[in-house]
Amino acid sequence: MNNFEFKNPTKIIFGKDTIEKLKEEIPTDAKVLLLYGGGSIKKNGIYDQVKTALANVDITEFGGIPANPEYETLMEALKVIKAKNITYLLAVGGGSVIDGTKFLSAAAIYDGDTPWDILTKNIRTEKGMPFGTVLTLPATGSEMNSGAVITRKETKEKLAMGGPGLFPQFSILDPEVVKSIPQRQLENGLADAFTHVLEQYMTYSVDAKLQDRFAESILQTLVEIAPSVLKDDFDYKAASNFMWSCTMALNGLIQKGVPTDWAIHAMGHELTALYGIDHARTLAIITESHYTYNFEAKKEKLVQYGERVWNITEGSVDDKAYAAIEKTTEFFKALGIDTKLSDYTNEYEGTAEEIQKRFTDRGWTGLGEHQSLSPENVEKIVKMAY
Amino acid sequence: MNNFEFKNPTKIIFGKDTIEKLKEEIPTDAKVLLLYGGGSIKKNGIYDQVKTALANVDITEFGGIPANPEYETLMEALKVIKAKNITYLLAVGGGSVIDGTKFLSAAAIYDGDTPWDILTKNIRTEKGMPFGTVLTLPATGSEMNSGAVITRKETKEKLAMGGPGLFPQFSILDPEVVKSIPQRQLENGLADAFTHVLEQYMTYSVDAKLQDRFAESILQTLVEIAPSVLKDDFDYKAASNFMWSCTMALNGLIQKGVPTDWAIHAMGHELTALYGIDHARTLAIITESHYTYNFEAKKEKLVQYGERVWNITEGSVDDKAYAAIEKTTEFFKALGIDTKLSDYTNEYEGTAEEIQKRFTDRGWTGLGEHQSLSPENVEKIVKMAY
Repeated sequence: MNNFEFKNPTKIIFGKDTIEKLKEEIPTDAKVLLLYGGGSIKKNGIYDQVKTALANVDITEFGGIPANPEYETLMEALKVIKAKNITYLLAVGGGSVIDGTKFLSAAAIYDGDTPWDILTKNIRTEKGMPFGTVLTLPATGSEMNSGAVITRKETKEKLAMGGPGLFPQFSILDPEVVKSIPQRQLENGLADAFTHVLEQYMTYSVDAKLQDRFAESILQTLVEIAPSVLKDDFDYKAASNFMWSCTMALNGLIQKGVPTDWAIHAMGHELTALYGIDHARTLAIITESHYTYNFEAKKEKLVQYGERVWNITEGSVDDKAYAAIEKTTEFFKALGIDTKLSDYTNEYEGTAEEIQKRFTDRGWTGLGEHQSLSPENVEKIVKMAY
Repeated sequence: MNNFEFKNPTKIIFGKDTIEKLKEEIPTDAKVLLLYGGGSIKKNGIYDQVKTALANVDITEFGGIPANPEYETLMEALKVIKAKNITYLLAVGGGSVIDGTKFLSAAAIYDGDTPWDILTKNIRTEKGMPFGTVLTLPATGSEMNSGAVITRKETKEKLAMGGPGLFPQFSILDPEVVKSIPQRQLENGLADAFTHVLEQYMTYSVDAKLQDRFAESILQTLVEIAPSVLKDDFDYKAASNFMWSCTMALNGLIQKGVPTDWAIHAMGHELTALYGIDHARTLAIITESHYTYNFEAKKEKLVQYGERVWNITEGSVDDKAYAAIEKTTEFFKALGIDTKLSDYTNEYEGTAEEIQKRFTDRGWTGLGEHQSLSPENVEKIVKMAY
């Protein structure tokens, strides 16, 4: 096991009818900016629950934060924060709204030239404006971690940011919200959480037995509940397990003391930036070719995963490892998610070269758990995913 | 899954050569009280590492905190805290030293009549004197939770306390400390952590799939590493997995959203108070008779545990559940731990009646996950454990 540090101070409030607890978490004298996305919260009743809980609090609203939160939109929200002397941010939404709120938490008290620097100069936020979240879409885990990904439309870039100052003070997780989530977003959430775990697990062994088993626990749970989450009748038990699994998939715990990969995300982000493909689907596109290209390096872990998560017992080491990759692709397909770039766009020619060029231009010389994947390797992996 | 709240702000610093990081965690202007136990830290080099790391900090020392930390001894430490205007506590030890430090953290700023009230009146500590820990003995999980158990010698009582103000600010977990731990303490640590998980898991299903799998992950890891932890040659990898498993076994995570039992601990504490038997061994004494007595209520979970942790595949539901209990007893015995009260004392007659009387006197009418075990039930369970 590698040395590690772990601290996660976010308070989780989990369960039915918990949105009303908002009033116990936000100081009554706070000037709150309520941030949300496309407005679905006004249709499914969550907006009303939030407003009722915070009836006695000074609230300004900023809606319209898009999927893959954009810098340009967020800069408008930043103007509101300054103009209204906002002191507390409340994200009501999924990963995009929460990520956007994290950027605002950092930007609101950043004293450099331009908040864009936070993204391009890898500035870690030690202290941000306090914020909480009401999660409306289980998927990214952003509700219990301190990272965010922000998009800049004009340059088609997706860039990561974070720091210990960007943990939500609290996150309210009411599985009832799953009831009104469109099928497509449920599929995305399951695939997103599943891939988050894979990125922190499918590397090489450092004999971190408990971390491995925790990762496998989340994968097993997602596999087990996926059919119930996707079926038409709302199933509160399945929704609860789905929501908690998504949070645990990326709250820092399972990555402690082990090597992590994240190359699938690095490549996937480019596909979203270039073609607007849903984040989770870009991960499903890259996974198979990434694991196939890096087969030797990941073989041992692929076998363990195949045996423990998919009950693969037959065949040679190579057979089991390949079968584990195949099972993963089948899982994505069973969710209703296509796993080739050509399923999403006809204009895929040149994509691999473009991504290779972007990585080269940014000076990213080594991706993956060994920091050994060059932009040229990336080009080959993306091409295998056409 | 039941509703729950979860917040654990303790910073974990895990790995080789991490004790030197103490200097980054304790404010340089703090007046520190360094608390430790019987003095083994002076023989194994940990004391020197701590003193070197804190060379520039004002330190007062208080050694001699016994196993099952006693109120009387702690009141002496409290005098030192007041006399020296201590502002920060540092526990260097195992669960007893850390639990004692938690009591002091609460007592140092308690403004009631007597600190004894904290224990007898169930006063939760919202804010205590800040403290950190250097863990020298993996077992209790106290290094990452906010609970403590304190003994009063004159009344032979063991009482629990806690509150959100009693999380350590940081805990340093260096698996190298395992090298110098006596065999008996290693056995105790493994049994203690194992039983902690059982108390939060062996109840009834609320379909909390991830919590169940996390609990099973810790149990599986402890079973897998126990032989390596106990063998004469120090094994850093096994020690790392042991240490992290003990912490995760009782840091609050696996108990969230599920019913918990803790009747084994309630009964076990009395055996320690009456006969001075090691805490972990009292748990091993009670477990088999508790699960046998409550067989019907726990049967379903016993089967799941048997199948997933012990790979029991044959037989009826009852067969599997009984086999799971048997495997548990065998595990304790393989650790070198006896599982009957008569293995520890010849004077066991009357113990069950005495414990029944104590529970009745305290007004404890219902123990266990259903709060259904009466003092009379307890009497029967303890008698089965003779």
